[in-house]
Parts: sequence; C-alpha cells; structure tokens
Amino acid sequence: MSEATPHPSAVSQSVVEGVTRTPLSGSKKIYVESAKGDFSVAMREILLTPTLVKGEGEQAEYEQNVPLRVYDTSGPYTDSQAQIDLYKGLAPMRARWIEDRADSEQLGNFTSDFTRQRLAQEDVSQRFPNKPKPRRALAGKNVTQMHYARQGIITPEMEYIAIRENLGRTATGEYANNSMGVPEQISPEFVRKEVAEGRAIIPANINHPETEPMIIGRNFLVKINANIGNSALGSSIDDEVEKMVWSTRWGGDTVMDLSTGKNIHGTREWIIRNSPVPIGTVPMYQALEKVNGVAEDLSWELFRDTLIEQAEQGVDYFTIHAGVRLAHVPLTANRMTGIVSRGGSIIAKWCLAHHTESFIYTHFEEICEIMQQYDVAFSLGDGLRPGCIADANDEAQFAELITLGELTQVAWKHDVQVMIEGPGHVPMHKIKENMQMQEKYCANAPFYTLGPLVTDIAPGYDHITSAIGAAQIGWYGTAMLCYVTPKEHLGLPNRDDVKIGIVTYKLAAHAADLAKGHPASQARDDAMSKARFEFRWEDQFNIGLDPDTAREFHDQTLPKESAKVAHFCSMCGPKFCSMKITREIRDLYGDVKVEATQSPELEEAMQGMKDKSREFLDTGSKLYQSETG
Amino acid sequence: MSEATPHPSAVSQSVVEGVTRTPLSGSKKIYVESAKGDFSVAMREILLTPTLVKGEGEQAEYEQNVPLRVYDTSGPYTDSQAQIDLYKGLAPMRARWIEDRADSEQLGNFTSDFTRQRLAQEDVSQRFPNKPKPRRALAGKNVTQMHYARQGIITPEMEYIAIRENLGRTATGEYANNSMGVPEQISPEFVRKEVAEGRAIIPANINHPETEPMIIGRNFLVKINANIGNSALGSSIDDEVEKMVWSTRWGGDTVMDLSTGKNIHGTREWIIRNSPVPIGTVPMYQALEKVNGVAEDLSWELFRDTLIEQAEQGVDYFTIHAGVRLAHVPLTANRMTGIVSRGGSIIAKWCLAHHTESFIYTHFEEICEIMQQYDVAFSLGDGLRPGCIADANDEAQFAELITLGELTQVAWKHDVQVMIEGPGHVPMHKIKENMQMQEKYCANAPFYTLGPLVTDIAPGYDHITSAIGAAQIGWYGTAMLCYVTPKEHLGLPNRDDVKIGIVTYKLAAHAADLAKGHPASQARDDAMSKARFEFRWEDQFNIGLDPDTAREFHDQTLPKESAKVAHFCSMCGPKFCSMKITREIRDLYGDVKVEATQSPELEEAMQGMKDKSREFLDTGSKLYQSETG
Repeated sequence: MSEATPHPSAVSQSVVEGVTRTPLSGSKKIYVESAKGDFSVAMREILLTPTLVKGEGEQAEYEQNVPLRVYDTSGPYTDSQAQIDLYKGLAPMRARWIEDRADSEQLGNFTSDFTRQRLAQEDVSQRFPNKPKPRRALAGKNVTQMHYARQGIITPEMEYIAIRENLGRTATGEYANNSMGVPEQISPEFVRKEVAEGRAIIPANINHPETEPMIIGRNFLVKINANIGNSALGSSIDDEVEKMVWSTRWGGDTVMDLSTGKNIHGTREWIIRNSPVPIGTVPMYQALEKVNGVAEDLSWELFRDTLIEQAEQGVDYFTIHAGVRLAHVPLTANRMTGIVSRGGSIIAKWCLAHHTESFIYTHFEEICEIMQQYDVAFSLGDGLRPGCIADANDEAQFAELITLGELTQVAWKHDVQVMIEGPGHVPMHKIKENMQMQEKYCANAPFYTLGPLVTDIAPGYDHITSAIGAAQIGWYGTAMLCYVTPKEHLGLPNRDDVKIGIVTYKLAAHAADLAKGHPASQARDDAMSKARFEFRWEDQFNIGLDPDTAREFHDQTLPKESAKVAHFCSMCGPKFCSMKITREIRDLYGDVKVEATQSPELEEAMQGMKDKSREFLDTGSKLYQSETG
Repeated sequence: MSEATPHPSAVSQSVVEGVTRTPLSGSKKIYVESAKGDFSVAMREILLTPTLVKGEGEQAEYEQNVPLRVYDTSGPYTDSQAQIDLYKGLAPMRARWIEDRADSEQLGNFTSDFTRQRLAQEDVSQRFPNKPKPRRALAGKNVTQMHYARQGIITPEMEYIAIRENLGRTATGEYANNSMGVPEQISPEFVRKEVAEGRAIIPANINHPETEPMIIGRNFLVKINANIGNSALGSSIDDEVEKMVWSTRWGGDTVMDLSTGKNIHGTREWIIRNSPVPIGTVPMYQALEKVNGVAEDLSWELFRDTLIEQAEQGVDYFTIHAGVRLAHVPLTANRMTGIVSRGGSIIAKWCLAHHTESFIYTHFEEICEIMQQYDVAFSLGDGLRPGCIADANDEAQFAELITLGELTQVAWKHDVQVMIEGPGHVPMHKIKENMQMQEKYCANAPFYTLGPLVTDIAPGYDHITSAIGAAQIGWYGTAMLCYVTPKEHLGLPNRDDVKIGIVTYKLAAHAADLAKGHPASQARDDAMSKARFEFRWEDQFNIGLDPDTAREFHDQTLPKESAKVAHFCSMCGPKFCSMKITREIRDLYGDVKVEATQSPELEEAMQGMKDKSREFLDTGSKLYQSETG
C-alpha cells in the first residue's frame, strides 16, 4: 500500500506491515498431519548442523543431527509462507469443527446491549473491519469441551492437542522418571478423560475459531500466560495487537487482555481476530469503565451484559472473582497490604457499600449458563490473594480458596470448564502448601498462579523473584504460570520487558516439566548439551529459548564468524577450555585402562539415591493422583 | 592529580579517580560499636520517609519510619567520608588483632620462588606500589580461626561477625519460624561453636587484614560469591579492580579472582589490597600458566610454590580440586558433557598422562600445613560436577563428593577451615539430594554451589535458570551461592552483567533466608510491603536491592516527580489501584460491622496449615541438626 492511501482503521499502517513475521532463528514451521489427514498441527523444527566426527578440512567426516521439534505457540506469524492480513484476521481453523457439531447457530445480531449500541454509534475507523456475527449454543445445548468429554466424545480439538503435546516424544522415547501416570504417548482419549474429570481445560470459545487448540492441566506441559493491555495512562490498539503477536512468538500459551483504558472493546476485537492462542480477560475491568470507575454503581445486569459482550467476541476464559464473599473482607483487616487484586478490591468495595454478597457470587449459576453457551472457561480469580510475603497463606486467602472449591463443583454441574487462580507473593517454604490446599479444596481443577514472588525486596527483578516461585509451584503441579515482567510493581512493560518476562517463564515452566519427569521435556536440554560439548555454536543459540539474545551476548566478546566454529569460547579462552580438554582426554587416552572406583561408599550412596528417587516417585505419584476419580 | 603527572602504575588514572564511590541511593554508612568499644562494624542504613497518617497539605500528620539496617559488603567505598587511595590499599583493620595473637611474624622476604623472581625482574609500573611483606605463622603455630575456636578462643573476628549477622534483629525481634536452632541473637560464642565444629568458616588470611570479617555457614545468612578475572581474550588490571569494587557494592560477600591471562599475580595484588571482602582463587589456573598451558608438565613443586605465592599475597580461600582421583575419571566416560570444571579437567588430564593419583591428592596433608600457616580456607572443588542436566547426580559426581568428605576430615585434623563446592546443572527434583549427600558425606562443612542451573535451554538467561536452583539449595542449607551472569556459557560478563548476576543472587539468597526462617530476614520485606501499601515510592526504590534500576523503570512510564508521591501507579492507573481501593475501604467502611467467616472448613484448613508448618519445622530441624556434635 502506498502512503497516499491510509487504511481506514485504528490500527496503524506500520503495525500491519511491520507485524513481526520472521521465523525464529534457525527454525522452520512444520505441519504434522492428523491420523485421518483431516487437519494438521503446527510445530517448530529447529534445524541442527552436523557433528564433526573426525578429521578436518576436506577430510572431515560429519554425522547429521536430527532436527529438534519444539512446541510452537506463534501461529502462522512465523510461517514465512503464510498469508496474513490483520484486517481479515487469521483463518478460522476450528470453524468447520464447530459447525459440524450442529449444536450452535450463528446469530443475526449481537446479544449484548452494549455491543449493539456501540455498533450503532461508533466511528467506523475505530472498528475491526470484518467483525463476524456471533455464534451461540442452540437452546438447551451445551457446547463446552467438558460437556463433550463427559459424553465420551473425542473432539477434533482433543485430537489436535494429543498430537501437539506428543511433540518430540517419538523422536527420543526414553523418558522414565514419569511421576504422574502420564502415558508414554498422549492419546486423544487421555485428553478427553482429563477434561471430563476436570483436571484439564481446553479454552476454546466457539466465537474464537482462530485458536490452535491447547490444553491446561497438570498432566500436560506446563503453560504460561502473558498479560497485555492498555491502561488509562498509556498504550494503544496497535501496540496491543503487536504485543499479542510478540508474546506468542516467544512462547505465550495464552494471552490475557487486561486493558482498562479507552477502546477496550475494539482493542479486544483486533486481538482476538488475530490471535492463534486463547484470550483471557477480567470482565470486571470493562464493567467498571462502564460505570466510570464507581464500584458501588456496578450491577448484575451490567456485568451480565459485559460477559455476553465478551463471550460473543470470542474471549476464551474469564477471570471471575466470585470467591470474594462479604464475610471474607474483614479477614483482610490486619493484613500488611490488604487486598491487592484489582477485581477483588472492586468487589469488596461493592459488598461493603451494599452490605450484601456480591452479585457475582449470588448469580454464579446464571454465569455458568452463559459460559456453557459459548464455551468460555472460568478462571476463578483469587481476589484475596496475598500482596506481600507477610500476608501469604493467611485466613483470607484460604477462606476464598475454599469458596472457589465450592464454586468449582457448581460450574462442573453445568459442564463448564474451570481453572483456579493462585498467588502472588509466597516465601518458598509456604509454596507447596498452596498447591496442596488447592488440590484438596478444588478437586484438582487446574491451578493457575501468578509467580509466586518469593521475596519483595527486588523491584526491577520481579520476573526473577517470581520465576523462582513459579518453577517450584509448576513442579508441584500448577498447570499454568502467569508471567511477570521486570516492570512489575513499577511501570508498564514495553516490548523488551514482555519478551524477557515470557522467556523467563518459559524456562521456569520447562524446569518444572523436567522436574516432573514429563515425557517430552528432556530432549531439548540434551540437544543443547550435545551442541555445547561439540562446540556447535549456532545450534546452541537456536536451541535456546531466545536465540537472538544468546547470539548477541556471544558476539559481544567474540564477534568473528570464525569464533562460532571455534572449539573454545570466550569465558576460558583456548587453553583453559574444559570441554576441549575432556575431548582431548577421550581422544588421546581412550585406550588407557583405568579401573573405575566402585567403593562400598559409592555403591551405598548410589543405592541411597535410587531409594530417594523411588521415594520421590511414590510421593509424587500420590501427589498427582486424581482425587475425583 | 593533574593530567600532566601520570601515576607510575598499571592502574589507569580513570579508575583511581573514577572508582565507584557514591553511597547507595537513600542510604548512609553507619558504624556499630562493639561491646568493649574497641572496634566498630560497618552497616548500611536505608533512610525512610514518614508515613502520612491523615490529612493533607498543611494539615497533614506524619509518622516517622525507623531507618532500615541492612547487611553491607561494600566496605569504605560507599562511605562518602572515607579517604581511599587505591595505591595504598584499604586500612588493614585486622592487623592489630593478628599481631596481638603473637603467633605469627612478618617475614623479611617472600617465601615463594616465583614471587621473588618476579620482584627481581619486573617493571615497576606493573606492580602494586606498596606491596606489604608477608606474614606467616611462627614455627609450630596454627593461625586458623578454626584452631582458635577449637581452643575455646573467641577472636575479634568472631565478635565482629556476631554483631554483623545480628543486623536489624534488635529493631524488630519478632521472628518465629526459626527452623535451625539459630539463637534469637547471634552471640560470639555461637559463632565460635559453629566454626569449631566445622559448620562455618571465616575466610581470613592473616595477609589480608583489610577484610571485614564475615562467615559462611548454614546457620548464618546465605552468602554469595561474584567471580571476576581476566582471560587470555580480554580485560585488564584496572577493569578487575573496579569490578571488585562494583561487585561488593551490590552485595558480593566474597569475590573470586579467576584470572587466567597475563599479570595474574599483579592483578590479584591490586584486588586484595583494595578488597573489603575475602578473595578466593583457583591456584591451578596460575600454575597452568606457568607451564604454558601444558597440563602434563605440572608438578607438586610448582603447585606448592603457587599456593605459597598466593597465600602470602593474602588469598582467603583456595579452590583445590583434590577430589579428582585417577579412578574417578573413567566414571565420566559415558557422560553427555564429560568434565566441565576447568580445574577438574586439567587434573584428570595430568592423572591419565602420568597414570597416577594427582599430586594434589597425594600431597594433601602438606597443603593443609601450608593453609594453617596463613589461615587460607579450603574450598574443595567439584572437578567432576555435572555439566548438563543429563549428567546430574551421577556416579562420577558422588564418587568425588565422598572423597571430598574424606579430605574434609584430614583438613579438620589440621584445624584448617573447609567448604565444599557443589554443582552446577541439576534439575529441580535432584537438588535436595545434592544437599543431603553433601551433609552425609561432608559432615555439615559449608556447601558452596554454583547455581545450580535447573535447565540448559536458556542461554542468555542462565542467571535466572541458576537462581531458581540456587534459591532452593540455599533453602535446603547451602551456605554460599556462586553467582552466574547472563553471559554464562556465552561470553565474558561486563559491568552490567556483573551487577545483574549479583542482584539476582542476592534475591535468591534472601529468598532462602526467608524460607529458612532466619531471624534477620523478614524485616526488609516488611519494610518494602509497608512502603508499597503507603505509596512511598522513593522508599520502595531504596529498600530494594537495586534502587537505580527500580527508579529508572518507574520513570519510564511515570517520569514526573509528582508521580512519586501519587497514590497510584502506572500499572493500573488511578481508578483501578487495588491498594488505593483497600485504603478507601478501610477509611470509608471501617465502622461497618461484618462478621468474619469462620467456617468449619476454614478452621480445619488453617489447622492443617499449622500441622504442615510444624511438620516442616520438625523436618527442617532434623535437616539442620549437627551430625558432628
């Protein structure tokens, strides 16, 4: 498009043309066909250079390295072949599956009063140009993935997820430390069973057919969420769309749009139509905008209309702070930092002003009825989560958690999918108890935590203080980790902050998968270690979560191209490289016979290790056993 | 000094004048007098702004906040009153204590051949201008802190440490979750007992009287080490001196000089003379330089001379890879990344070349005799530590650990202080086993680990992958954590990398202290939380580990000065600020009576929590009990 003809849209030209579209370094998009060949699952393949087996120059002999398959959240944006037009949105890959189920219909108009008013009033330049008509369950029908699962139906979404989660497993197939009863191969039936029993959710609104199906549950790979959204003080629609693309590029499994400023509806539409991952929101934020920020003026009718408005746009999960009950509020009175959840504080204020239970709590069954018509999943919010180390694991927090457990049972009665949000700020010795309490009271519904931060004394580094907690709670069984950026508690994250937050959470989630002994987790570490031992520098960069930063760091010390094939690195220099010496030892002294020590102490020690390991597996198995049957 | 008269030294003018000398933001240096008034202990006090109690403008009423005392490793560099001349070195604060013990003497010349040759040959411009004559134990005397401790002597160093470790405790005095049998107040006698029993070390070479005494042990605050040092490929003396100052500014409790390039001796002299913290080295690196990098040419005589050379300079602890035995080497044959310790690989190569045990192992008692003459502590190196996730906790690693345990007993026979180095690369579920094995085989000698990294797939973020492991192993009982910078595995850290690595490790160590329930650990978190709840922005920055970065991040979104007293922040904007709403709730509805929920479920839950907590304390207590009596 020429500069002379600006597109009639709020999304700036630069974003549409400049949206990040390159494949990740050294990678290409591949598509794995389903068993029946009726769809294909997008993955990323990291191409590896060959290993030098012996010789050099023209005499060199090489051995190929199999490309490494990794989980890919980036959608078509990293496929250089894909045609993308942000004005049209992504191809609705799930549309036919949804239609084929014949239990929903496309409506002639939007159900929400707000949406209809907005359509009538607003300037066309603020609007997504091809806003689709909404789809809703036929009367008496329930369109949730949980509903299908409980009927014994394996949906295409479940088939897709089984292939997606199996990633890399066939290639190596030698994982033993499986503490969770996860099968060697994830089958569509295993996916169905986990969803039916409430241990996993598939966020998949029928109005967001653009999503590539994914699953959140303790017996699957640990997922991460990235928050984006403008606030009253900054950011705009085009920033937010690019943030979504940027977030999924680096590994965001879901994105929450937490906008609180202007154009919330429009921003969300642009994001959803172009997002390959599920989108979550906190509907209360928009509801409060509609009453100009006066919490006391909120009402069930307004909130209900907001839920429908967002459900018909395609939001895949809602954070709903239904566990904040009137009688819980006094439990926060002696806290060091009171109520720190925005949603929680809004509801607490409403409850006290009206001196009654919140309309969210009293209308919870009606909310479930809305959710089941679109398949919006609950993310039951922890409005009373601790806001600092001193307030962790207190009575207010656990009173709410118990309520969330009761509400989980109500939602499940309606076959509505549920995950439970968790803290926040928790010192390390109190983290496991959070997981255990959640298991006990919420019947293994997936746990979705923010961090937790294990100390409050490092503003500017809270992506790290929280990643320490996140890795641990992920190991203990948390299914999704909400990222934290370096700007947490200080300001709004920019593009770099978002990337740093996501990469930090990907490594925490991966560390958790490794510690859980998840079958698909070790291959990437091993590929990295092999590349490191063989001085395949380019492969080391590309196998990592952030190849660009790794390469940049390397080149700061050793910028020359030749250094990338050098058999040493800048840390020790050529003479002191231990890996080089190890290789020399193996090369030069390979024939030297030395009996390995097998002292009684070592045998005893290794036996002790094995016993400990078994003990861990036993405990682990117990920890991960279903309590809901 | 004018530009016309350059100082005759290798240290550049810019460093001498430009060495970082400002106090940390919002802080001032204070000196706490000893009981007898014969010395004072340097600490940092963070000044806090008052809390607005009620009203505004001229009617505003304020309440003072007590300044927060924090542990300070930065020495006189952050005291704006202190006179510092890098050419003279720091004041030798321990000199009189050492002299008063009357068990050592100042020698007329250096004992090491290398040092003497160097003094005779080298250009004066390369040399520290006031190199002090060395001090050594009188014949038959033992000058280690462990020796004194075992005789029942409480040294001034121990008194100093007791005051230093008590930091902030008197101010609050309400710590309950004490899982380790640490007394409410650290007494000099407690310090003595921990040193006597080998559970803690005081690295304090009599030739490094400039150090401010500090302690490394599981029953004290968790410490961190920062590595500096040039390599064949970069850096110079002036860089390294400033790096030391920079490292201690941000919290490095000890600094290891790992130089491997030119001028190792000279670089070290400059660092030691100007360092307020203990300095560690790996003498093998310099020994290898002396044989031009040919490991096979190393000999006991050369190594012995290097130990004495460095001991007489004032190095406080030596990493000695004495646990790498000939018969251990074959245990590494099937590893994915072989031997990754530089020292370990050098010794392995030597052992195989000569087909005999290493001279370090066979001369270990002689090494102990050298150490006790200067009070150099052992940091028994883990030359066979795993270099990747796949190699963690294997037979090679534990075979060496068992040997290190045997050597610990030998060193203790000579009253030589010992800590044990640990990995490295360990997935989360194998971290605790490392600690338990170390306790079992090394009789609670302090554990000093590098990370461990909990995954290998995030080069560029290894300060984070390793901080996750470091926080956990610190919680389990590791006494000192060796930092990792973002450049790990990629390149040499620059100034920013060093700072990021240190701050990351400080937060990990602090998280460990919190989780251990160490009596001095909670006050800083609480001060931060209170400042946060009261919107005291400047205090939030200053209480944090890195005030400059926190302020910079805040100002990127809300740069105006008025925003620093605003009762909201940029993340949510004024309308959505939960803390603001909480305060409004307390202000507006403080009189509304609402009965707090005390459901049977909550009571049961909180009881369960208390049981768990007790269970944890019981386990913790057991974990931390002395096994050596």
